[in-house]
Amino acid sequence: MEQYSERLDDIFQALADPTRRAVLRRLGRGPASISELAAPFDMALPSFMKHIHLLEESGWIQTRKEGRVRTCALEKKPFATVETWLSEQRALWEGRIDRLEQFVTSPQRKEKPR
Amino acid sequence: MEQYSERLDDIFQALADPTRRAVLRRLGRGPASISELAAPFDMALPSFMKHIHLLEESGWIQTRKEGRVRTCALEKKPFATVETWLSEQRALWEGRIDRLEQFVTSPQRKEKPR
Repeated sequence: MEQYSERLDDIFQALADPTRRAVLRRLGRGPASISELAAPFDMALPSFMKHIHLLEESGWIQTRKEGRVRTCALEKKPFATVETWLSEQRALWEGRIDRLEQFVTSPQRKEKPR
Repeated sequence: MEQYSERLDDIFQALADPTRRAVLRRLGRGPASISELAAPFDMALPSFMKHIHLLEESGWIQTRKEGRVRTCALEKKPFATVETWLSEQRALWEGRIDRLEQFVTSPQRKEKPR
């Protein structure tokens, strides 16, 4: 549970930046090299690499070096983790709505006791 | 688009903390006062209030003061924003899978030209 919570911290932290979200978006279309990924950004390579490392450490991407080229690919597991978190939240509200409905409908039942 | 991106930064930043996620989870069951929300945490009130302010500024909660009690309530719009972002990402992969399927199936069609 502790580990799950820490993983969520990292997963959401990774998404809290427009460069990192743009990298994930690009990788949604297929794997790409670091230089391809960095091209659209007016950013020094060391700064860009910090984003890549954060994406890799948080589990959003995998990278693989072949010769002098490092290729990045999207990992889908964190998406599933975020979706699970969202659906857990939704289940809480829906439980609340169910309880509200019970509260609203049960007195009416009491008024018609046959 | 710029505004949407900044809003996403704040929305995801707010989720990158276990205390803030726990507050959202509690508010999923219905509105609560600051003291009710703070009770489960071994945290000084000023530190806890920073989390509350961050949740309010990022749009995840609304707070309302009545007399000496400030009540917090969940806002559902950011959930929809996160869900939209996730489904945009999914559409990208699915587009990629569609293109892969076309690539895999179209040569077979060329082999049978009638």
